[in-house]
Amino acid sequence: MTTVFETLESNVRSYCRAWPTVFDTARGAWLRDESGREYLDFFAGAGALNYGHNNPVLKSALLEHLSRDGITHALDMSTTAKRDLLVALRDIVLVPRGLDYKVQFPGPTGANAVEAALKLARKVTGRTAIWNFTNSFHGVSLGALAVTGNAAKRAAAGVPLAHAVPMPYDGYLGDDPAAGPAWMRRVLDDSASGLDKPAAVIVETVQGEGGVNVASGQWLRALAELCSARGILLIVDDVQMGCGRTGPFFSFETAGITPDIVVLSKSIGGYGLPMALVLLRPEWDQWAPGEHNGTFRGNNPAFVTARVALEHYWTGDGLTASTLALGERVRDALDELAARYPGVSARGRGLVHGLAFADVSVAGKVSRLAFERGLLVETSGPDDEVVKLLPPLTVTPDELGYGLTLLAEVVDEICAGSPAVTGTVRARFTGCG
Amino acid sequence: MTTVFETLESNVRSYCRAWPTVFDTARGAWLRDESGREYLDFFAGAGALNYGHNNPVLKSALLEHLSRDGITHALDMSTTAKRDLLVALRDIVLVPRGLDYKVQFPGPTGANAVEAALKLARKVTGRTAIWNFTNSFHGVSLGALAVTGNAAKRAAAGVPLAHAVPMPYDGYLGDDPAAGPAWMRRVLDDSASGLDKPAAVIVETVQGEGGVNVASGQWLRALAELCSARGILLIVDDVQMGCGRTGPFFSFETAGITPDIVVLSKSIGGYGLPMALVLLRPEWDQWAPGEHNGTFRGNNPAFVTARVALEHYWTGDGLTASTLALGERVRDALDELAARYPGVSARGRGLVHGLAFADVSVAGKVSRLAFERGLLVETSGPDDEVVKLLPPLTVTPDELGYGLTLLAEVVDEICAGSPAVTGTVRARFTGCG
Amino acid sequence: MTTVFETLESNVRSYCRAWPTVFDTARGAWLRDESGREYLDFFAGAGALNYGHNNPVLKSALLEHLSRDGITHALDMSTTAKRDLLVALRDIVLVPRGLDYKVQFPGPTGANAVEAALKLARKVTGRTAIWNFTNSFHGVSLGALAVTGNAAKRAAAGVPLAHAVPMPYDGYLGDDPAAGPAWMRRVLDDSASGLDKPAAVIVETVQGEGGVNVASGQWLRALAELCSARGILLIVDDVQMGCGRTGPFFSFETAGITPDIVVLSKSIGGYGLPMALVLLRPEWDQWAPGEHNGTFRGNNPAFVTARVALEHYWTGDGLTASTLALGERVRDALDELAARYPGVSARGRGLVHGLAFADVSVAGKVSRLAFERGLLVETSGPDDEVVKLLPPLTVTPDELGYGLTLLAEVVDEICAGSPAVTGTVRARFTGCG
Amino acid sequence: MTTVFETLESNVRSYCRAWPTVFDTARGAWLRDESGREYLDFFAGAGALNYGHNNPVLKSALLEHLSRDGITHALDMSTTAKRDLLVALRDIVLVPRGLDYKVQFPGPTGANAVEAALKLARKVTGRTAIWNFTNSFHGVSLGALAVTGNAAKRAAAGVPLAHAVPMPYDGYLGDDPAAGPAWMRRVLDDSASGLDKPAAVIVETVQGEGGVNVASGQWLRALAELCSARGILLIVDDVQMGCGRTGPFFSFETAGITPDIVVLSKSIGGYGLPMALVLLRPEWDQWAPGEHNGTFRGNNPAFVTARVALEHYWTGDGLTASTLALGERVRDALDELAARYPGVSARGRGLVHGLAFADVSVAGKVSRLAFERGLLVETSGPDDEVVKLLPPLTVTPDELGYGLTLLAEVVDEICAGSPAVTGTVRARFTGCG
Repeated sequence: MTTVFETLESNVRSYCRAWPTVFDTARGAWLRDESGREYLDFFAGAGALNYGHNNPVLKSALLEHLSRDGITHALDMSTTAKRDLLVALRDIVLVPRGLDYKVQFPGPTGANAVEAALKLARKVTGRTAIWNFTNSFHGVSLGALAVTGNAAKRAAAGVPLAHAVPMPYDGYLGDDPAAGPAWMRRVLDDSASGLDKPAAVIVETVQGEGGVNVASGQWLRALAELCSARGILLIVDDVQMGCGRTGPFFSFETAGITPDIVVLSKSIGGYGLPMALVLLRPEWDQWAPGEHNGTFRGNNPAFVTARVALEHYWTGDGLTASTLALGERVRDALDELAARYPGVSARGRGLVHGLAFADVSVAGKVSRLAFERGLLVETSGPDDEVVKLLPPLTVTPDELGYGLTLLAEVVDEICAGSPAVTGTVRARFTGCG
Repeated sequence: MTTVFETLESNVRSYCRAWPTVFDTARGAWLRDESGREYLDFFAGAGALNYGHNNPVLKSALLEHLSRDGITHALDMSTTAKRDLLVALRDIVLVPRGLDYKVQFPGPTGANAVEAALKLARKVTGRTAIWNFTNSFHGVSLGALAVTGNAAKRAAAGVPLAHAVPMPYDGYLGDDPAAGPAWMRRVLDDSASGLDKPAAVIVETVQGEGGVNVASGQWLRALAELCSARGILLIVDDVQMGCGRTGPFFSFETAGITPDIVVLSKSIGGYGLPMALVLLRPEWDQWAPGEHNGTFRGNNPAFVTARVALEHYWTGDGLTASTLALGERVRDALDELAARYPGVSARGRGLVHGLAFADVSVAGKVSRLAFERGLLVETSGPDDEVVKLLPPLTVTPDELGYGLTLLAEVVDEICAGSPAVTGTVRARFTGCG
Repeated sequence: MTTVFETLESNVRSYCRAWPTVFDTARGAWLRDESGREYLDFFAGAGALNYGHNNPVLKSALLEHLSRDGITHALDMSTTAKRDLLVALRDIVLVPRGLDYKVQFPGPTGANAVEAALKLARKVTGRTAIWNFTNSFHGVSLGALAVTGNAAKRAAAGVPLAHAVPMPYDGYLGDDPAAGPAWMRRVLDDSASGLDKPAAVIVETVQGEGGVNVASGQWLRALAELCSARGILLIVDDVQMGCGRTGPFFSFETAGITPDIVVLSKSIGGYGLPMALVLLRPEWDQWAPGEHNGTFRGNNPAFVTARVALEHYWTGDGLTASTLALGERVRDALDELAARYPGVSARGRGLVHGLAFADVSVAGKVSRLAFERGLLVETSGPDDEVVKLLPPLTVTPDELGYGLTLLAEVVDEICAGSPAVTGTVRARFTGCG
Repeated sequence: MTTVFETLESNVRSYCRAWPTVFDTARGAWLRDESGREYLDFFAGAGALNYGHNNPVLKSALLEHLSRDGITHALDMSTTAKRDLLVALRDIVLVPRGLDYKVQFPGPTGANAVEAALKLARKVTGRTAIWNFTNSFHGVSLGALAVTGNAAKRAAAGVPLAHAVPMPYDGYLGDDPAAGPAWMRRVLDDSASGLDKPAAVIVETVQGEGGVNVASGQWLRALAELCSARGILLIVDDVQMGCGRTGPFFSFETAGITPDIVVLSKSIGGYGLPMALVLLRPEWDQWAPGEHNGTFRGNNPAFVTARVALEHYWTGDGLTASTLALGERVRDALDELAARYPGVSARGRGLVHGLAFADVSVAGKVSRLAFERGLLVETSGPDDEVVKLLPPLTVTPDELGYGLTLLAEVVDEICAGSPAVTGTVRARFTGCG
């Protein structure tokens, strides 16, 4: 029977094709479809649900706000909900880390926050070029798309994307972490390189969509130093890797760098509600009032859940510690899998991990079979060759163990052709990567 | 005392400067600040709150969805909440109007929906140029900003905006509604005009941010015919004027035209929650899966309130009729004001109206004094010379009457210098426009 | 027999297709092909041969320079030939007209001079946009092409052309010469028009390639005043219309305007040798040394013929007077032709004239048949619908009369189907325009 | 006394500042100023005078052509002079080398030829990006400037330059010739690299303006193979290095590669007259007639001297052999100089050589002192740190020896501080590089 999704929803729909069911409710690390079947979620809204689905602590505050008719929509008017969030950001996030940032509320999406950051960097430097990195993903609006690597998404712009040049990400040119920074330094110091000095460099410390590529602290520091020495703004896009995904609140903390601009979205709202922030060193806060705006930049219900998430999860080190501990477990499990088959390798940090397959067709098969078994994992990387694990940070050890066991079974079936493999899949496979 | 807004929030904040208080709760047409003072809202979230603040019918459904742990964040997975919304869109909005559109869920903002529409138009036509209109506003991400008129916002791009050319909006070149279409037709039919044939024309039927400029049905039909005859896609940006703002659900219905693409946001979510839609004629739905994406394109709580808004307000003609009736009342009041002072004129349609002042400094004064008196009205137009009225469509006749009376008093005070005017304002004014 | 032109020369070759013979020598208004056949030239190198082919006065100076081993190639080193030219420019052209210009020697083509002018205008204003006009032609390098109207030539760029917007040329929007300037003024004075304030306006006083469209003095003055009032540079591209083509040395003299920048090429070298100049008001001469360069910017043989042309033709009013007188004769002849057939009209100024046909296929037929009869005339206009007459300014009255008689015969044959028409042409024609 | 150059010529003038005299005549390797002083020319019109100034063989043919009123200006009409040139190109240049190229006559400058090549590459591939190289120079019109490295010249565009990305030239990333091609291959094979697949790569085999950087045959072959394998057009800009400058007629012959498109200018006209050619593999000759044009694309006097140069110098191997032999002598002399001082190094090929100084201020001093001694040498490189030697290929061994001796004396004086150094120079110098 043809569903309304097929008849009415645009062809652009995507995840619903990989996961062909109709979801209804969710809680913590679990989604339930309308038939009552449950799925363990190692995808977490592509990183927007670090605190799990419908987190009860946040839910309670949200219901309270809505029930008392707390402001819902406020553009950038001052509200009590915004004030409480600003105070929590200051006292829980910024001050303890010695960070002196101004806070901009752009439109409620990562792409919009990236657009704001790029615009501001260009405005304050008077330069037009931005340097991004190979395999980066920063969004699909025209400004953000120009710094995004994916060729198919770029082509969908319908116009040539301009004013951005990708640099080699850590590890892209081989094992030498100095290779990329050397190329950047060389062209900056050469007035005839043909690469115009950029307004800013925009970087993800771990490239989630790009295939779980992890930048080393050494590389990030070299980048930060280069930017600082040459008067180039360093923008860290922490949309997916911030809010504790790699352990600390900001993913760049372990590298010991302080970006000029930080872009947050996805889990910053806490509950999966649309919200984004741009953090700016005060000297760059040269916006004129209203110069960047957006109707939904004052999504107050999200301000409430954002604040409660900070208060509940970030006043101590507990979440960071548990994330790192759970991450170790993921890494061990993936390393074991990788050791079992040729052409398979593991990588990651905190609770973002990837299992990469040299045979680029394998990851998609793993994702599909995992779905059949009740586990949601997405793929990433230029050829969708990496199974990417993004469980909620609030996943329990038991849930995590269960999911990793499921994943191992699925990989075993596909790579080793064990009896459990469905006929058609088995028939097509003789090796793995 | 310096507030956290001043110390921590970016200079880009804007409305909080015009309306210097801290809002706390809201209901219907009223906002309440933390001191308990109430403000009648003729601004309605810049058109995002057509059904009023925290509309009880929608609130009830929203609380129910949240309480039962209905999915909150789902990217573009299929969910029961999305299915119910699609069915309601089809049965309540599209089928009764004979409209055959596919529905795209872009990111949850108008700008993102505009970006999606422009990308698609370029992709399906293979052309790069877009024609927009003088005084248009479509958003501030790089693609949307290129079709936005405001010079200060454009300059904030930090790069030259390309691939878009503004055409004269209805009335821009004087009273002849044929002047603009004649220019467009002339350059299209001239292979040496230097204006490349565009992929699409993007138009607002009433330019809200541009100063409440109302396009006539005749002009819109001429535009639609020109686009159709030349194979140019017609995109109507109904972000602010759709969802009943001008009376009918879509603002273009009265003109009898059928756009190729319709962009909706602001009030489509019903409750002021971030949400946007792109409606596409099926032949243009040439997206590849995932070609345009975004983390918050599956904001399911907004799907719930969007659906209930359609079910509650759009199964009959009641809201349209009351909007038109209330609109007449607004128009009468503004016409009376306009007749009272030289250099003042009124314009509008449905429940979007503008009071324009030849002396461009007046509108801002009106807005500020209205705030002091407990009425929220914003300004618009190239020089902020127009007081723009956007009350919730659910405003009661009494509330509307009260607000119009307040407005008239304020205008009288500022323009006529009546005793009620505060000293400083009075001192500065000797005439009005 | 297949010639080396067909086997070896690129498909891009063009005039050789319309005029299928092999030319060998030339003198004055006459070209001779290798079979000895002579052609009267009403094309004059597209305006590069205002003083006729191999003008004996210039030839003598050129041979003298070459014979004595005068410098040929000098980049922008100082040479005696360049000094003599600068002095002649100053004393014969600039000072008598009260013009205070600096002289730049860009690369030796009109396109290069246009590129230099646009770059400088952007540099000194800090703005990126340029306004050009419908049906304009300024060259085919990427910067010049962006301000050129022809759609096919624009498409050949292979990239979207940016940073330029065409405005309506005089007469483009009908008879009212104020219509275009009104549109320009309106968008300039409207900070939300969406048309960024341009660095410069570039205009031809008569659009040769565009179809011999003649701007009125009133319109040019309105344009100049608008530019001056708004701080926009006015660039007159006098590549084809300068050097006496319209009567006075500069085509803009009769309008009484003084452009900020004047671009000269084609006939400025006198003998048909590649050369170009950019004249700049001193305040705009903000070039850093070498900021714009080019290998052939010091074509000294052309400096010699350029100087002698000034000395010989421009120390008195003789050439201007004879050009205007001959032009009258052309105009009378064309008016007579236009009066004879419906859909035919004449236009022009000085010695540039056009005969426009409503049936756009006629002009090409006229050009081809004229060639068969020994007269070279090219077509122009968006649809090649205009026969364009550009005889050398040094054409004798007898030659001019002969050519006009030939042209009239050809038009008669094609439009009226007189017995002289060749069978195939006749068979296809029943009316004219 | 202020000269007309200072009062009237634009500030953009450049070489006349370095060489402050007024040149009058020239012959072979010698220029003579108006005072009768002679200068040995190791600059040769920046490579436009490979056959020397006013070469008597070419001069004779040129005078003959002009005297008999051979066509001077012909756009792209067929002429006997063009036919003779095409035949010579075919029989002397193309056929003996097994090259199957179509010949396009663009405007008469290298920049224009580059513009044509880039446009065509974009047209035939449907792609917009071009890859150029660090330190490249291809001209200053907007399309050519986008692939030129020099930051100051790029900034003079006044608009951001788009659609081009520089790749590392051979040696740019250190000694490994595989480093650059590895980066190119990596990003091409990665669909998420963010570097759009280019229409073409444009390369100089020796970067003259860039500092006499010599690409190895191995590197050029790797580049050609990469282009071929990925369907990217390879454009060799042989404007300065073609016509025998490196020994063989084309500079790429020794590497054994066959570009898709070759751009020629400078010495192709033989006599220093403006002329340029684009050579195209037949399958890329997809121009529509007239799609790229230009008034001076039919500079027939240059066709005559171009043909005679081919006939006289290229029917045997003599010029190649003597160029290589003379080049050896230059190299020996420079190596000896380089060995004498720290921070000095020599590089080059054929008769293009560079002497690079680690102390970037030295090269300019060498050039200035050489001028005082009667030797013209220019500087190149990003910091003008390289003395560049480009003597005419027809320089005699004695002249070459004299010039090299002069140069050595100058370098000695500046680097070693010998008594001959002028006071002011000496005072400032204590070491060399």
